[in-house]
Amino acid sequence: MTDWQEITGGVTAPRGYQAAGIRAGLKPSGLPDLALILSNVEAIAAGVFTTSQVKAACVDYCRQRLLSKQSARAILCNAGQANAATGSQGWLDALESAMILGQELNIPSESVLLASTGVIGRRIAMDKLKAGIPQLVAALSETGSDAAAEAIVTTDLVTKSIALETVIGDRPVRIGGIAKGSGMIHPNMATLLAFVTCDAAVSPTLWQQMLSRAADRSFNSITVDGDTSTNDSLIALANGQSRTPALTEMGADAEKLEAMLTAVCQHLAKAIARDGEGATCLIEVQVTGASDEQLATQVAKTIAGSSLVKAAIFGRDPNWGRIAAAAGRAGVPFEQESLKIQIGNFLLMENGQPLTFDRATASEYLKQAADSAMPQGMVATNMSNDLSGVDRTQIKTQRLDNPVIITVSIGNGHGSGKAWGCDLSYDYVKINAEYTT
Amino acid sequence: MTDWQEITGGVTAPRGYQAAGIRAGLKPSGLPDLALILSNVEAIAAGVFTTSQVKAACVDYCRQRLLSKQSARAILCNAGQANAATGSQGWLDALESAMILGQELNIPSESVLLASTGVIGRRIAMDKLKAGIPQLVAALSETGSDAAAEAIVTTDLVTKSIALETVIGDRPVRIGGIAKGSGMIHPNMATLLAFVTCDAAVSPTLWQQMLSRAADRSFNSITVDGDTSTNDSLIALANGQSRTPALTEMGADAEKLEAMLTAVCQHLAKAIARDGEGATCLIEVQVTGASDEQLATQVAKTIAGSSLVKAAIFGRDPNWGRIAAAAGRAGVPFEQESLKIQIGNFLLMENGQPLTFDRATASEYLKQAADSAMPQGMVATNMSNDLSGVDRTQIKTQRLDNPVIITVSIGNGHGSGKAWGCDLSYDYVKINAEYTT
Repeated sequence: MTDWQEITGGVTAPRGYQAAGIRAGLKPSGLPDLALILSNVEAIAAGVFTTSQVKAACVDYCRQRLLSKQSARAILCNAGQANAATGSQGWLDALESAMILGQELNIPSESVLLASTGVIGRRIAMDKLKAGIPQLVAALSETGSDAAAEAIVTTDLVTKSIALETVIGDRPVRIGGIAKGSGMIHPNMATLLAFVTCDAAVSPTLWQQMLSRAADRSFNSITVDGDTSTNDSLIALANGQSRTPALTEMGADAEKLEAMLTAVCQHLAKAIARDGEGATCLIEVQVTGASDEQLATQVAKTIAGSSLVKAAIFGRDPNWGRIAAAAGRAGVPFEQESLKIQIGNFLLMENGQPLTFDRATASEYLKQAADSAMPQGMVATNMSNDLSGVDRTQIKTQRLDNPVIITVSIGNGHGSGKAWGCDLSYDYVKINAEYTT
Repeated sequence: MTDWQEITGGVTAPRGYQAAGIRAGLKPSGLPDLALILSNVEAIAAGVFTTSQVKAACVDYCRQRLLSKQSARAILCNAGQANAATGSQGWLDALESAMILGQELNIPSESVLLASTGVIGRRIAMDKLKAGIPQLVAALSETGSDAAAEAIVTTDLVTKSIALETVIGDRPVRIGGIAKGSGMIHPNMATLLAFVTCDAAVSPTLWQQMLSRAADRSFNSITVDGDTSTNDSLIALANGQSRTPALTEMGADAEKLEAMLTAVCQHLAKAIARDGEGATCLIEVQVTGASDEQLATQVAKTIAGSSLVKAAIFGRDPNWGRIAAAAGRAGVPFEQESLKIQIGNFLLMENGQPLTFDRATASEYLKQAADSAMPQGMVATNMSNDLSGVDRTQIKTQRLDNPVIITVSIGNGHGSGKAWGCDLSYDYVKINAEYTT
């Protein structure tokens, strides 16, 4: 079914995009903190934003912009200050950011979308932002995706990036994406940001529909600790530079494009879950037998989000009882006699009753899935007390191909769904209990 | 408004009740594990049970019993095996338990209610239960509440007990209660059990209504880690032995009784939250300004259940940003410009914007509230690998009068609500990551 191949280039892999990331001095650490993605032509733009009642100025700004005009040229992202809970001044800062970038790029400020991540309650350091923008624009490059990916992270241990290519009507079509996750060493930083570029030609309505569905099957199906940020933003551009026929409704080509978009989002989402604070492994929960996909996903998310399940996986404990209990409280009706639970290849429960299994070997499976995912000792670098205090030289590539797989069936329905999470370790508590100052 | 006084005696404080707790050998540790509460006359019975789709046999049993007959004489509780995920054999074991106790007490088995707590997937050790029941009945006493309270705990660090007395129509009316909480050293043990006795005369319908409302304002408003057990049960008896006029509908006397019932349930619920695994303090979240009580409670529960807020309190960090973020994602609409947040007497946020405050003094408030609640070093005893491995000689009285208080206002509505939780410590992870065998 995977009708695409992985390519290099991130958000600059699709035709007609440039990107940049620079050090503007917004992060106390002096690490890269200002990123820009630019489409060479006006691109169709879609977005999915935090559902929180407490929203950052950039989220309000993007939502308003996309309501009045479903296209954009540029995405500007600053890391360091969240510009949330900053009142009317925060709103003016957002407007000014877009205006300054628009002037520098010689495009209308209405074509600029914004994202911020950092400490809640802090305004963007506007003097540094203003001084940085000319440098940022000067740094734009068709190979600038990695620089942008590095400038949007805060306390992430690794950057997140992907690009895929498929063929539509004999021509290559590409989608690229970068993201940052919820590495919240510091209070008030929990933001998920993801930026996706595509060179297909799609109508605004169809692109937004595709993005919303892809978000449900990726970013909305991961859980680190159940907290939702004030700044969560997923923005996707489609600029038509692949010169493929315009897609305006669902059909074979549109389905192909949506499947690839979903794969890009799922890769980024899994990378974020794997990089959850203190995590030692990625957990994938697959639920089948529900009456529809939504209910299956609801059960999967409840299991992936259960502190008891997460702590058991950290302890390499094949604890079917906690999985059963989490499934039972997901708010989805099922007959407990239908419950079937598997970890890896180990069948632990069937027809609602526990089975005999080799506990030591099952524990070994959990251990191997976890230990192969990231070098030991890596998380220990995540302890600094600086806002962006992670030793960036430690950033390594994640392995996402070896998660702990939990499979649950709750009946005979045709609905299936997946969710991703990470285990709960001592380091999660350590990271989040550390005092701000 | 508190129109009652605290008295001693727990569930045997109300007239016409006896209780017992013995060592029947159901727990590997040999600690007390079988409890009985008996009303001398048939008592009106009400219950609130787990909403999980995966239910223990005793829960199915009680729900069926209370559907056909809203009265009972006895509550039998075993600790050691949960009798959940045990299929039809588990159901037969439950029926047999009730029958044997009924014969021993010379009452119909239909007058026996059941509760179990312990490892999921394990049947009750029926030989030991049968051998224990004559001893249990022989041990019944009008001062047996403490023995019963001790026999229902599993890994709780302290027993939970309360009794209150008020006056209705010139006669004293009493309500007593005992409970066990979610001290889940071991996998598969997350059960909340609470048994309440009352000597007022109340109609079955009114008693059930009162209990359901009291449960919403107490047990349903606490969170340790968001997990719900297969065995959660709250059972309340009212035997009329106070010889007060029968209450059949709401009015001044019924309101008084319900307020006292709510206070009993809240005491037990707070004791359970305070005894959450690894907890170093009790957290009380008070939310005002919502459009109704339910929405206010929903915000309060979301804040009390946020891993980020809980870890911040453990770190003694007055982190308003995490509280604001949790409030924002509670699913309750409000204007972020209306948000007001206070920890203790420290006003941290008003009109949706952060205020300057003395961070060191606020942190000191958190420290004192926490440190005064339970002797240092106590939690360290909670590390044993035995099913009931807590050193029971370490059991001490909790202090519930000095919680960390978080006050949040979300607008001008008249709805207010409270929720209780505990902080998230290294020990929570340690306790829950430990391998079963």
